Amino acid sequence: MKLLRVDMTSHQTRWEAMPEIYQHLGGRALIARLMLEEIPATCDALGPHNKLIFSPGLLGGAGVTAAGRLSVGGKSPLTGGVKEANAGGTGGDTLGRLGIKAIVVEGQPKQGEFHLLHIKGDAAELLPADEVRGLGTYATSEKLQAQFGADCLVISIGPAGEFLMRGAGIASTGEREQRSNHAARGGLGAVMGSKGLKAVIIEKPFGNAIPFADAKLVQTAARAFAQKLINDPKLGTQGSQHLYGTASIVAAVNEMGSLPTRNFGSGIFEQAADLRGEHMREVILAREGKIGTRCMPGCVIACRNQYVDEAGMPVVGTMQYETIALVGSNLGISSLDDVARLNYSCNDFGLDTIETGAALGVAIEAGLAEYGNMESIVALLNQVGEGTVTGRMIGNGAVTTGQVLGIRRVPAALGQAMPGYDPRSLKGNGVTYATSPQGADHTAGNAFGARKEVNPLGIQGQKELSLKLQIIAAMLDSTGLCLFARPPILADPQLMVDMLNGIYGWGWTKEDYDRANREVLRAELEFNRRAGLTQADYRIPEYMREEPLAPHNVVFDVPDAELDAVFNTL
Amino acid sequence: MKLLRVDMTSHQTRWEAMPEIYQHLGGRALIARLMLEEIPATCDALGPHNKLIFSPGLLGGAGVTAAGRLSVGGKSPLTGGVKEANAGGTGGDTLGRLGIKAIVVEGQPKQGEFHLLHIKGDAAELLPADEVRGLGTYATSEKLQAQFGADCLVISIGPAGEFLMRGAGIASTGEREQRSNHAARGGLGAVMGSKGLKAVIIEKPFGNAIPFADAKLVQTAARAFAQKLINDPKLGTQGSQHLYGTASIVAAVNEMGSLPTRNFGSGIFEQAADLRGEHMREVILAREGKIGTRCMPGCVIACRNQYVDEAGMPVVGTMQYETIALVGSNLGISSLDDVARLNYSCNDFGLDTIETGAALGVAIEAGLAEYGNMESIVALLNQVGEGTVTGRMIGNGAVTTGQVLGIRRVPAALGQAMPGYDPRSLKGNGVTYATSPQGADHTAGNAFGARKEVNPLGIQGQKELSLKLQIIAAMLDSTGLCLFARPPILADPQLMVDMLNGIYGWGWTKEDYDRANREVLRAELEFNRRAGLTQADYRIPEYMREEPLAPHNVVFDVPDAELDAVFNTL
Repeated sequence: MKLLRVDMTSHQTRWEAMPEIYQHLGGRALIARLMLEEIPATCDALGPHNKLIFSPGLLGGAGVTAAGRLSVGGKSPLTGGVKEANAGGTGGDTLGRLGIKAIVVEGQPKQGEFHLLHIKGDAAELLPADEVRGLGTYATSEKLQAQFGADCLVISIGPAGEFLMRGAGIASTGEREQRSNHAARGGLGAVMGSKGLKAVIIEKPFGNAIPFADAKLVQTAARAFAQKLINDPKLGTQGSQHLYGTASIVAAVNEMGSLPTRNFGSGIFEQAADLRGEHMREVILAREGKIGTRCMPGCVIACRNQYVDEAGMPVVGTMQYETIALVGSNLGISSLDDVARLNYSCNDFGLDTIETGAALGVAIEAGLAEYGNMESIVALLNQVGEGTVTGRMIGNGAVTTGQVLGIRRVPAALGQAMPGYDPRSLKGNGVTYATSPQGADHTAGNAFGARKEVNPLGIQGQKELSLKLQIIAAMLDSTGLCLFARPPILADPQLMVDMLNGIYGWGWTKEDYDRANREVLRAELEFNRRAGLTQADYRIPEYMREEPLAPHNVVFDVPDAELDAVFNTL
Repeated sequence: MKLLRVDMTSHQTRWEAMPEIYQHLGGRALIARLMLEEIPATCDALGPHNKLIFSPGLLGGAGVTAAGRLSVGGKSPLTGGVKEANAGGTGGDTLGRLGIKAIVVEGQPKQGEFHLLHIKGDAAELLPADEVRGLGTYATSEKLQAQFGADCLVISIGPAGEFLMRGAGIASTGEREQRSNHAARGGLGAVMGSKGLKAVIIEKPFGNAIPFADAKLVQTAARAFAQKLINDPKLGTQGSQHLYGTASIVAAVNEMGSLPTRNFGSGIFEQAADLRGEHMREVILAREGKIGTRCMPGCVIACRNQYVDEAGMPVVGTMQYETIALVGSNLGISSLDDVARLNYSCNDFGLDTIETGAALGVAIEAGLAEYGNMESIVALLNQVGEGTVTGRMIGNGAVTTGQVLGIRRVPAALGQAMPGYDPRSLKGNGVTYATSPQGADHTAGNAFGARKEVNPLGIQGQKELSLKLQIIAAMLDSTGLCLFARPPILADPQLMVDMLNGIYGWGWTKEDYDRANREVLRAELEFNRRAGLTQADYRIPEYMREEPLAPHNVVFDVPDAELDAVFNTL
């Protein structure tokens, strides 16, 4: 197992044996530790001292279903703290098979200089990026796959990342025609841009599955895990998550009054029915698009879709709940076709749809476009690609947009836009937004799934719930597991322990595993502390504590003392 | 002595006897204490919980020369911490004579609603601002003086404040034709805008001089003070500060390699001679403009000028060093006429010339205009008045402009643009920028005057010097004294103690006085701590620690430990 260091200042690459301190770590856990060890916490996130880290989860390359997500990390230019974002596609599996535990991109080239990182077997070199400079992520991956092979993995940024926009994400290819995989959050695309790295290309052959310390133990646990996923009523072939994907929750979030609507001005959208996953499935099937596709090869859940237009032409490789909420109801848009169009543009520019949807909502509140008026919204979003000042403002996310336009109602925590759950009516998410070292994030500890266990409108039990979910999120992001695939592991953690022990021969107990997951959060909180972030930076915006949200007319009223106590038992 | 509370939510005003805890305080000291007592430190600076405070210094209204500055304060939307900015003009004297220790503007009206606060004798009421809405500060004060009397005091914001731009300041009238007085820094104009307060009008009669506990003591000390100013070789009628005003230092700052040039890209400007105060005096005299005017009636220093154009028409009421540096050399501009033109626009829009000059420098680095090309720079600045997105970006200051445009080289500390001294070659100022609770500020503890005592390029002695200067600055800003007028007080603090005891009968010793001055900084640091600001927020930007500055090829290398130790002996 090895680590690839890429020095953008000297244009040198260097393979390293995996340092001892990083041995038991993968994905988000490795990123957190490496950041603590190697990145000065107060550094300029877009300067030479930040690092951009790609790392597969611990299960990456082991052939475990739904466990091949690729983590990307570094200091976030948006939150000023630690950031890990991950994506499906073939990245986690590819790096895992190649025995690459991490690619660490360091230093900084001259301004305006862009490179490609090309990896083939043991060869890793930087090439000029002139031919794809300025291209969107779709054209970039197409062009590079045409040049290096249709099966190669391409991880790239679009114009948003090149322009150092802090709403920029990183796109990754998957299996053929599965291009829409984005490690979207926290502005890591801008960090990649600041490194002058336009794309990473990894050529086939990707190597075999990683060697196992105890192959039988892996196989037994992995098979049991897969079978439990198949048997899960929500995940199996008749389950809502398989049938409708993440969009299955549109109706439920709307009914609970938590669906971001018109810049988080309401929790209920009168046209939410048109955005429901059930409706999306009908539309896609009627147009002969695809349902039940996968972001990761071999995934038994297959929750993905390929959204097509009226002519049956593919628009985006998958339409997800967060996108539907943030560029749909949050902008007063009720047409899935319109959502898909905005989604495509964000993907192509290399922008996080959550951050961008929130920024557009703020811009609409300032009068730069109109809710529900696609033409005005498209005109605004297209400026991102044109690199106008307005486009750069939008591409820099909700907080910057609010600052420039003088808008107080900016749905963000720790500088990062909130995902598709208003914290006033799903207070568990509010607690996570206001305490997670990752800032407001849909995967850092999402309480939506627990809405029947803990009253989403109450305060009682939220801090315990949030902590539990944040620890689970750390586990998922460190193993490469999909959020949807967590139920069997939560029901029987020994399954995960067995898979890890089978692969690595660590002889871990469940306690070791629990400790490792908690340690991720501890390391991240410590990095943020060193970066100078305090409770004041994490809080839910003032207006959400004072302006009641329809239909429940609730404010975010979890006391600061409760928030400050979340990690007391970490 | 009384305090006026103005509730913008209910549109009510209320006179209050001066609360006991504020009795011994004025100006900046009163603002700091009132903020600690009354403003939740983590509040939204542009929301209803922030307060905007006007307060004369302790000498305000006592008829002491050069001591009538008016302080304005509140939580800064730019730094996220405490902010006090002060201006000359007749504001400090007027409020002092009326026995008004503070006007505290609270709450928030409906969005888009603007009012005037009208004070005449004991009557204080809010009036609609419709007739001056959207006007620049010049037209606003002209119109209001036409309506309420040519002698009335008008304190106003321009479009920048109305648009909540965080580079907005607050303008105040002075004696007739003396309109250019600005409490410019920290975005307090945006706070005034967020309160929906377009202007404050105070009608004559302003009342008599404040009553004295011991008139003889006041007179003796005040006369001695004035005489010492007159006798000071720098301040007297043949002194450089009288002859050339603050612009007297252009040549010296350039020679020490600290003159911000082309976005702080160099410390030396090849055309600095054209910007010198000596040259400005010649130009003004040749055009029959005015030299030796005063911002405050009765000032014996009379350092001000009225800059006129080639036709002899007044452009700005005074051209000051910071403006010449920030919109002159920092933008590659060597013509005083051009500087004056930019100065006028900033004044009229109600923008801080320091923040705006720095923002324009950053924008030029990003390619939005060209150094030295007036047409391109004017086109950019004019957009502030038009309220375009580009204009709003510029008006929000250097940090926001850098964020939007993806520029790392942003000369700012604590979110606020640096004034006209590069901290790399005047390290004492760097220490102040990086530790003052006010952020990078030209009056918070300026080491330029001490350049012969402490080597500006060395580290030794800087932290002691900065602390000493910061305490002096707190004294000046709390008494209403002009920075130029400090030498007699520094040489003999008893002079100030006598004036205060004579006015108020406090029986203070020099120790009481010293403690009071230090207490200002302690209160401000405590407010900032509560606001969540940490050392990481205060630091000099990374690039200034790594990119050498011509001509001395120096970086800012004062160790963090030295910075963190500045207040150890406070």
